[in-house]
Amino acid sequence: MRIEGKEYRTIWFDNDVVKIIDQTKLPHQFIIKDLKTVKDSINAIKTMEVRGAPLIGATAAYGLVLSILEKNDQSFLKKSSDALIQARPTAINLKWAVDRVMKKLSGINSDKNLKIALDEANAIVEEDVNFCKKIGLNGLKIIEEISNKKKDTVNILTHCNAGWLATIDWGTATSPIYHAHKKGIKIHVWVDETRPRNQGANLTSFELNEEGVPNTIITDNTGGILMQRDKVDMCIVGTDRTLYNGDVCNKIGTYLKALAAKDNNVPFYVALPSSTIDWNLKDNKNIPIEERDPQELSHVEGVDENKNIKKIRIYPQKSKSLNLAFDVTPAKLVSGLITEKGVCEASEKGLKILFK
Amino acid sequence: MRIEGKEYRTIWFDNDVVKIIDQTKLPHQFIIKDLKTVKDSINAIKTMEVRGAPLIGATAAYGLVLSILEKNDQSFLKKSSDALIQARPTAINLKWAVDRVMKKLSGINSDKNLKIALDEANAIVEEDVNFCKKIGLNGLKIIEEISNKKKDTVNILTHCNAGWLATIDWGTATSPIYHAHKKGIKIHVWVDETRPRNQGANLTSFELNEEGVPNTIITDNTGGILMQRDKVDMCIVGTDRTLYNGDVCNKIGTYLKALAAKDNNVPFYVALPSSTIDWNLKDNKNIPIEERDPQELSHVEGVDENKNIKKIRIYPQKSKSLNLAFDVTPAKLVSGLITEKGVCEASEKGLKILFK
Repeated sequence: MRIEGKEYRTIWFDNDVVKIIDQTKLPHQFIIKDLKTVKDSINAIKTMEVRGAPLIGATAAYGLVLSILEKNDQSFLKKSSDALIQARPTAINLKWAVDRVMKKLSGINSDKNLKIALDEANAIVEEDVNFCKKIGLNGLKIIEEISNKKKDTVNILTHCNAGWLATIDWGTATSPIYHAHKKGIKIHVWVDETRPRNQGANLTSFELNEEGVPNTIITDNTGGILMQRDKVDMCIVGTDRTLYNGDVCNKIGTYLKALAAKDNNVPFYVALPSSTIDWNLKDNKNIPIEERDPQELSHVEGVDENKNIKKIRIYPQKSKSLNLAFDVTPAKLVSGLITEKGVCEASEKGLKILFK
Repeated sequence: MRIEGKEYRTIWFDNDVVKIIDQTKLPHQFIIKDLKTVKDSINAIKTMEVRGAPLIGATAAYGLVLSILEKNDQSFLKKSSDALIQARPTAINLKWAVDRVMKKLSGINSDKNLKIALDEANAIVEEDVNFCKKIGLNGLKIIEEISNKKKDTVNILTHCNAGWLATIDWGTATSPIYHAHKKGIKIHVWVDETRPRNQGANLTSFELNEEGVPNTIITDNTGGILMQRDKVDMCIVGTDRTLYNGDVCNKIGTYLKALAAKDNNVPFYVALPSSTIDWNLKDNKNIPIEERDPQELSHVEGVDENKNIKKIRIYPQKSKSLNLAFDVTPAKLVSGLITEKGVCEASEKGLKILFK
């Protein structure tokens, strides 16, 4: 996708270095950063220089390549893979990508490690681009249907950033939107700002602007009244982990929008590549919910009147705060899962028809 | 209630001047401001130096007193009352308070106007203090019941500021909390930060801190997962307008918490003095929803590392945003209305038992 008219992906391997866009600096600065060691990769995931389930999976896969470049040694590789998996707890792709590379390396003569790991990381990346494109084409049909029925602009609400910045290209939730826009369907996107890190405002609105898709940022509180007053035709969000039964773990606040959608008969779709499906966990109460630094709530970064980047404290100094990063949307609130293989019911049955 | 140990009310009349706490400066600065003209009063309501349905009602009542002090003239008074009512569209108390003073003035010899208006404004203020205290005592019973059953800290979630800063003293939603705290019941409050203006963080957490009530600020997205994981025992919020059928119009985002409470069997109470009841409007779709300056979303104020107050832009420069201030919580989601006359069902029947 484009930034200032130039095509980019979110991650690429170049000359033994992994290149990423430092997403903590967007939208105020566009900085391409080098990752040279596995520690750089872990740090980029932890500090959310890269974020979004598919992208952190890809970053972890390339992290193993960097690990081998540093020291082609079985025990170092094992340590690296453990540390990468533990960099963030909720998104399942992280473990999925690391396991996938490690499986390819198991029982292999170590002088072949580098090439095999790099090939597999590249394959993960290309597969993600391909899957996201297919998600877009499958979701496009739903938007087209609404557009044909309504014969007016389709208003789509999204939460957080499941955009191309969260994947390698296209995005998951945004891919149907980009495909609809390219096809000339009139759409408008309500972008939840997505506190505390404002990835909706900072990333989703930013990338929609760059692609010329009309959008309006709203606070996370606003979706309810918009649905009550018929200003939302559908919701599409991403997911960090989808259980086999269709329950969806995604950025905190997603659940509240799904409840409002249900209460107002607004279709609520979740877009995902199959790599985010967790086939093992039975109960959503057991999904680990990441707790992050409370300073992400109490302090905010932006630009002052001289365009300098400033961080300010917005809470009373004495106040405590709690920073949970995800919540769970039960399957009963999900109208359908948009995957690379098609759209299915959010249920074990629905997922098994497509994937088993 | 107390700020730095000293007792304050939010508004008082002193020597032909109305004194208010400038709430746009909290929590970073504590500034008492003089209102000397009706224009000052209108401006204080519009810019939210005073906010909260009961407090803007009181400010409007005193605004009429200032109007008479400026020019004791029937046509100026009429203009003043119209402008005060139009200062903000959603809260019903504003009109209620202005109408109440104007009714007392109708058919009165104009040399008595000043005393009559001032007496009535003072009566509105004293009545609000009294009603808020009674709301507290009525709501206290609900908290006590949960505490007796749970035999552990009662976790109460609130949205925005329906605290003493929104009224004259005690608050509406916070009054049961303060009464429980004074009685030694162990409570902890989850405070929704309440974007875009963060009145939860800036005002509710601030006032709870000053009274020594344990509290934790969370983003508006967080209440859902806390309820899913049994960390919330009850919700109490305020209201800007309560319809005769029990539908509640309150700060944007309230509806989303009420949906989550229903979905997780968490009791959801609304605390209100009877002055916020709109006995006329039949359909919540007809409640005017105030739209405010989008800069309240895109720009945030706080303190930098040198404790200077700074305003920064947090959104991409090209992005548009929409700033709606209220939403509607349908009666079906409300466990009960806590009023000065007791707790009732959120319905026409429930309200009529107490009020007609």
